[in-house]
Amino acid sequence: MDYSIDFFLNILRRSLFHPSFASLFLAFIFVQGIPVNSYLFIWSSVYTGSVFFVWFLGYMTKVSRNGRKSRKIDWDDEIVLITGGARGIGLLLAETLSIKNVTIVVLDIRKPEIEHPNIVFFECDVSKYDQVQKVAKEIIAEVGHPTIIINNAGVVKGKTILDESEEEILSTIGVNLLAPFWITKTFLPEMVAKNHGHVVNISSALGFSSVAQIADYCATKSGLLAFHEALRHEINARYNASNVRCTLVCPGQVETGMFDGVSYKYPFFTPTIAPIEVVKKIITALDKNETSDILTPYYVHLMPLLRALPGFINDLGYSIMGVDDAMKTWNDTRSKPKNQ
Amino acid sequence: MDYSIDFFLNILRRSLFHPSFASLFLAFIFVQGIPVNSYLFIWSSVYTGSVFFVWFLGYMTKVSRNGRKSRKIDWDDEIVLITGGARGIGLLLAETLSIKNVTIVVLDIRKPEIEHPNIVFFECDVSKYDQVQKVAKEIIAEVGHPTIIINNAGVVKGKTILDESEEEILSTIGVNLLAPFWITKTFLPEMVAKNHGHVVNISSALGFSSVAQIADYCATKSGLLAFHEALRHEINARYNASNVRCTLVCPGQVETGMFDGVSYKYPFFTPTIAPIEVVKKIITALDKNETSDILTPYYVHLMPLLRALPGFINDLGYSIMGVDDAMKTWNDTRSKPKNQ
Repeated sequence: MDYSIDFFLNILRRSLFHPSFASLFLAFIFVQGIPVNSYLFIWSSVYTGSVFFVWFLGYMTKVSRNGRKSRKIDWDDEIVLITGGARGIGLLLAETLSIKNVTIVVLDIRKPEIEHPNIVFFECDVSKYDQVQKVAKEIIAEVGHPTIIINNAGVVKGKTILDESEEEILSTIGVNLLAPFWITKTFLPEMVAKNHGHVVNISSALGFSSVAQIADYCATKSGLLAFHEALRHEINARYNASNVRCTLVCPGQVETGMFDGVSYKYPFFTPTIAPIEVVKKIITALDKNETSDILTPYYVHLMPLLRALPGFINDLGYSIMGVDDAMKTWNDTRSKPKNQ
Repeated sequence: MDYSIDFFLNILRRSLFHPSFASLFLAFIFVQGIPVNSYLFIWSSVYTGSVFFVWFLGYMTKVSRNGRKSRKIDWDDEIVLITGGARGIGLLLAETLSIKNVTIVVLDIRKPEIEHPNIVFFECDVSKYDQVQKVAKEIIAEVGHPTIIINNAGVVKGKTILDESEEEILSTIGVNLLAPFWITKTFLPEMVAKNHGHVVNISSALGFSSVAQIADYCATKSGLLAFHEALRHEINARYNASNVRCTLVCPGQVETGMFDGVSYKYPFFTPTIAPIEVVKKIITALDKNETSDILTPYYVHLMPLLRALPGFINDLGYSIMGVDDAMKTWNDTRSKPKNQ
């Protein structure tokens, strides 16, 4: 195992930065008889207060988006639809849920790499609305109405704007950005009618900041992020269907082969993550039946700040991190025949 | 004239917050013989220091993106291509530049509302790559290679994801997001070869945060923002063509009729702006021949922070500002026959 900053932050989150530890610490200082106007007591209070403040922000966000208590999901009643479920995160999610005995519908242009009685595969190019509508009728007739949608399908071409062909750009925009529109239009009405369901949109850390040689991917992931926000607001403000949850996933580089060979100058700070880590976080959100934003690894939490920084600090960061060269070493392992 | 926060901020920017005023103020305090360890002197230094710090950030960004000095543009050598130049900001930009005796090429699906010998109109649906390529041959033969590109064409449908038709979504994605790809692919190579040119991408304040009933527009404007970033990085890091400038424009609501009837709860803080204000800022950026980010009115400078805020504070802001109801009163004046 490679040690990255996330390893240490995870330990800190469960120890020093945990509200129970922080409150015990302050109580311990207090019972020692340390005077309340001493520096030690004041700084201990600041520390405990800060930990509670961050915890409070998270709690308030949870309540604001899910109400005071949310009923845990009953997996027996759920039908999970996963786009691009034939490999990568989509496949692993299907595999993990199938073991939990959940009914899964996979939409992809190729058959999933595994077979399981709980996984029902429908061949479908989700970037085409007519194909989605056609396959929807079959799904509803054969399996039932999906109650959980995972907008996961994504492609990457890894070319500069000038090198990329019209077909490649249309394919990226179609799969990564149009498909979520088509899938949502098709399956959301039933969720809204029953005020029950969960839409998971899988965007990317690159939705917050763009890099050379992958403009179309960044544009679609940024677009998907915007789509997700608008969708969440429409579900709550227009359809009053607040029990239809809406979860956003923005992972950094996941070791699925999609970004094979991409180089990082400081992998300690920007580690790659195992697909199962992302899948576990998604299943937790589904299981709790809660709208949430999944940003992982930790550095992704800082990325929404990038567009708010003064330009030259942003430029400096890019240059220190060597971001614009990252894609130069990318291997397009996915479109090679062996993976087809 | 309606007084908004921008009126007062503009005055402050030219007075209290201007470096020359701030330095004179500190010098004045100093020559009065005020002791340097007095509160008055310390706070005066903080004030002057802050003003200079903000000015320094702006200066460094300018230098980082344009080098130490940039040669002013010679308008006689320039050919300006404007997409969607038949009305709105595009038309006003064409009109204003035509008076400056600049050659302008307008691409639109309809004829511009004015005629001028300097404005050459080509009928073209810029969302179609083959049409852009076809018309490019005619432009180069009849007018020459465009040296300035304004990716301005934009449409808005103002419907929820569920209410919007496939055609409407495809039209929004095509005009607002695909067109900049096609135009850039077609005209950038010549700019890069000559290491001279300027690409202006007109995104929107809605590129930073999404609102109900306009998901596709927000997705494309967010995508265009991402496209712009990647393009800037590719021009500098991959083509070493740093004299090809790249300007991003994110206006709030401009009084062009595009967002007629949209309601704001606190127009003092989120004023609408006159189209000429945006056009003046674009022409200034072109004239100085400098890469810059044009965020106007002032509140748009705060919008990049929205996605970095804790969720419930973001939700609270939306609810206080009544953002999700804003589009309810929208009038689709543009697709009515009189404006065709």
